[in-house]
Amino acid sequence: MPTLRIALAQVNSTVGDIPGNVAAVRRWSREAADAGAHLVAFPEMMLTGYPIEDLVFRNSFVEASRQALTALAEGLAADGLGELAVVVGYVDADGPPAISSAAVPGSGRRDASALLHRGAVVATYYKHHLPNYGVFDEDRYFEPGDTLTVVRLGGADVALTVCEDIWQAGGPFSAARRAGVGLVVNINASPYELNKDDVRLALVQRRAIEAGAAVAFVNMVGGQDELVFDGDSMIVSAGGELLARTGQFSEELLVHDLELPVAADNAPAPDGRDGMMIERFLVSGDISEISGTADGGIADRLPDHAEIWSALVLGLRDYVDKNRFRSVIFGLSGGIDSAVVAAIAVDALGPERVVGVSLPSGFSSGHSKDDAADMAKRTGLDYRIEPIQPMVDAFLANMSLSGLAVENLQARVRGVILMALSNQEGHLVLTTGNKSELAVGYSTLYGDSVGGFNPLKDVPKTMVWQLARWRNTQGDPPIPENSITKPPSAELRPDQKDSDSLPDYEILDPIIKGYVDHDLGRDELIAAGNDPALVDRTLRMIDLAEYKRRQSAPGTKISGKAFGRDRRLPITNLFREGV
Amino acid sequence: MPTLRIALAQVNSTVGDIPGNVAAVRRWSREAADAGAHLVAFPEMMLTGYPIEDLVFRNSFVEASRQALTALAEGLAADGLGELAVVVGYVDADGPPAISSAAVPGSGRRDASALLHRGAVVATYYKHHLPNYGVFDEDRYFEPGDTLTVVRLGGADVALTVCEDIWQAGGPFSAARRAGVGLVVNINASPYELNKDDVRLALVQRRAIEAGAAVAFVNMVGGQDELVFDGDSMIVSAGGELLARTGQFSEELLVHDLELPVAADNAPAPDGRDGMMIERFLVSGDISEISGTADGGIADRLPDHAEIWSALVLGLRDYVDKNRFRSVIFGLSGGIDSAVVAAIAVDALGPERVVGVSLPSGFSSGHSKDDAADMAKRTGLDYRIEPIQPMVDAFLANMSLSGLAVENLQARVRGVILMALSNQEGHLVLTTGNKSELAVGYSTLYGDSVGGFNPLKDVPKTMVWQLARWRNTQGDPPIPENSITKPPSAELRPDQKDSDSLPDYEILDPIIKGYVDHDLGRDELIAAGNDPALVDRTLRMIDLAEYKRRQSAPGTKISGKAFGRDRRLPITNLFREGV
Repeated sequence: MPTLRIALAQVNSTVGDIPGNVAAVRRWSREAADAGAHLVAFPEMMLTGYPIEDLVFRNSFVEASRQALTALAEGLAADGLGELAVVVGYVDADGPPAISSAAVPGSGRRDASALLHRGAVVATYYKHHLPNYGVFDEDRYFEPGDTLTVVRLGGADVALTVCEDIWQAGGPFSAARRAGVGLVVNINASPYELNKDDVRLALVQRRAIEAGAAVAFVNMVGGQDELVFDGDSMIVSAGGELLARTGQFSEELLVHDLELPVAADNAPAPDGRDGMMIERFLVSGDISEISGTADGGIADRLPDHAEIWSALVLGLRDYVDKNRFRSVIFGLSGGIDSAVVAAIAVDALGPERVVGVSLPSGFSSGHSKDDAADMAKRTGLDYRIEPIQPMVDAFLANMSLSGLAVENLQARVRGVILMALSNQEGHLVLTTGNKSELAVGYSTLYGDSVGGFNPLKDVPKTMVWQLARWRNTQGDPPIPENSITKPPSAELRPDQKDSDSLPDYEILDPIIKGYVDHDLGRDELIAAGNDPALVDRTLRMIDLAEYKRRQSAPGTKISGKAFGRDRRLPITNLFREGV
Repeated sequence: MPTLRIALAQVNSTVGDIPGNVAAVRRWSREAADAGAHLVAFPEMMLTGYPIEDLVFRNSFVEASRQALTALAEGLAADGLGELAVVVGYVDADGPPAISSAAVPGSGRRDASALLHRGAVVATYYKHHLPNYGVFDEDRYFEPGDTLTVVRLGGADVALTVCEDIWQAGGPFSAARRAGVGLVVNINASPYELNKDDVRLALVQRRAIEAGAAVAFVNMVGGQDELVFDGDSMIVSAGGELLARTGQFSEELLVHDLELPVAADNAPAPDGRDGMMIERFLVSGDISEISGTADGGIADRLPDHAEIWSALVLGLRDYVDKNRFRSVIFGLSGGIDSAVVAAIAVDALGPERVVGVSLPSGFSSGHSKDDAADMAKRTGLDYRIEPIQPMVDAFLANMSLSGLAVENLQARVRGVILMALSNQEGHLVLTTGNKSELAVGYSTLYGDSVGGFNPLKDVPKTMVWQLARWRNTQGDPPIPENSITKPPSAELRPDQKDSDSLPDYEILDPIIKGYVDHDLGRDELIAAGNDPALVDRTLRMIDLAEYKRRQSAPGTKISGKAFGRDRRLPITNLFREGV
């Protein structure tokens, strides 16, 4: 029984930064070699980042990825790492990309995995199952592969697969059983969702048993626009036993020894109901002798609130850093939403990169200003005060405005001030509206919706409160108790409360979840126990808010179905649920 | 040889307005019956509108579509139209939709066509080829059908197909040849693109010859968010001859007599390389005797500028009317972009529904104000003047701003004024930035980018000028000559000109077209004859403007690849072409 020392490189890749991603592979491969690994696996699309979307149609981009792959193989050998088998994801194309092919989406583009050894690309594999739901659009972008790649390494047979190949039955894992491999390496760019770690573990275990082979599952970590990749890499035995597992939300190298069956030279079972061909490659030479024992260990899972908080912090940090912003700025009102955004921002970037601006109007209460100042004092963020009344008065003196137009005007003057500070000083403006408010349209277009990124875009209001209470239990509490306990208010007219216009959030949030996240209609929502009148009122608000949402900033995605790219509705849409 | 009188109902459908769409079918079916037609065909997804996007995952919506179909069949019979065969598109699902299926995209949802006769649904067909490129995402939404539906009507065999079925070889048209049908009815929601009419005619002719059958191609007409459906319905003989063709951009009923071969009862040719099954249905009873002759005639095609103008006018009108806006408002600067928007808006809505606001600053030239007033006088639109200086001064007095921050401030104050007027009076705000400006980021986020719809979003600056000159040749010229001939300027600082920051638009527009519309990389653009330094400068501007574009309003799509949904790039993307 050969023993392979497997390393899983759970690392952070950046879309488009091919040189940076290549450098990361070389750095982590060095670590893997130093740990005595025979094989190290990097995530899906490691060289290009994920998702690359329409970049796949640009020949120059695909060519850059292909050239980076061969240069990487040579670079690893030059680094003295040629004996290490390196499995890495990249984008490939059939033959040299031709200009004409750019016009035909998907034509010949491949979501690929390669095994590099001794300065060369020994084998490549093209992803077979292409996901085309939720945040995935891979039928637009790629052609599916139809051949399982099996590599013989140190006397064991190892199959290469990519991400969705493990989520769908049949195909590569079925072919892996026919090929009699000892190990399936599955490289991933699998985005974080609530409780996805539990789903993943059960899935990897099931596929290992189906394939009759150990599975090495490695996932990307890091933020990319509204996605967060949480890592959660693992190794499962052929019997379905969890052997080793990384932590979540941070870069990590998991190194683990795996006893594998001796590869047999029998022909594969002929029953190809999976529709896959099988192609075999040999990694030349013997593998190095194992020294000592490597046991990757099984890291604890985070509790739910810690998991969500980590996703929000990582999502914001990577959006800011990867887009090369020095700092962030936002309106700090003393309310719960901006307080939680401030705490996330300080955790992500440190207080010196966070600017909170109090933007009081004539309707702002004393406690609002006090709570904002208290928040700033607790966290050490850069705190400013910019009263909006002189600018609001200039508009009111020159125009005849009343009612809602005056309320919105205040929010828009705040937006103009934040954008002016952004232009003057170079900060990224954060939006602070929560998912509940955005869903029902309780916000001002070009007012409080101004900003390039919204950490709370997919966080319902009730969860905002839960996160605030949880965060305050972790070390010094950053959030003033009063921001958590006072009734929420937009403070755009005297004594205004959210409850004047909206049902209680405890009632609202389940309706939003049903309608937005689960596509339930009116009757289904009522059958689920929601009050009919409140369902009608809420759905009407959500339908009318669809347009506003199309204008909102990206933000971190934490649930199964978020706003933005993941929810696609026509703007012009006269379908109304119920009354 | 039976002669069928065929009617093609090129009509306007609205997403989500199922009752309104059903009423339109009943109204136009009456017209078709009055014209003596035996069969009338309505566009793809007539009952629901197109595209319905994620609405397809809502069971209540799918159920509403199915129920509307059966109610429509009964309604037509109640109207005394039961003898007319009505072919109509709708969304269907396999079996009754279950709540659980909502979580599995595409599961069992069908893009369907039905034939209604004597109060019943006689036959249904499920679209086989699903487009998943450009503006189409049908692999997300639908399951492909695998059975060609053939209906015997008045002794002739008629096959039902849907849209993309005609764009891809094989499949239904190949099965139609095997089935030996005399006519293929192809119902469409085929969006307008430049020169698409020429492509369509050649395509329909080729497929008619391949199928050995006449083809009746009926297309939707009207605007839906950023899409415009242009109609261009036609009937082509089995030999490929164009027999009849509608005009573009307006509702129309094309009625034409078609001699068809007598249906034979031979079994279909067995060679099903197209992978389709064939199912036959009988429309009971004899068809009525033909009275007189119906020749639909062949309408002239519009010249290019007229075609584009018509698309822009229809796109705006339907966005405004279908979303139930009373009127539109925008900044009327005296420059070419807002002048062309004003002319489009007046053509679409009439001058009484169009508000143009002059928003002069201290940097606005005398000719700007004069040209705006002249435009208003020529067209009769509602003209207002709102000087921005007092509001700008209030910000400057209370903040320390300089340079670009001051330039952007002026544009944002204009945005706040337009939104305040929108809130106060209920107008839809139009954005007036052209495609060239938007592509290179020559606009102010939350400033001149404020608005719910932008007629020029996909119109390059050079085309804006061409359209202005063309429109001025059609009757009384609405656009002041000075707006067309003066050099473009943002007027955000003294004596500013676009040419201070940008290459000439004659040089810029081909680079934008290559990079944005055709995905060419730097080397390909240089090989195409563009200046290397200008290519580098322009690509850098476009890459940096990607984010802004994500915030821009929808607008009418006129080219093969527009902004917005049709161009999907990661925001965080460090890939840079060239230097």
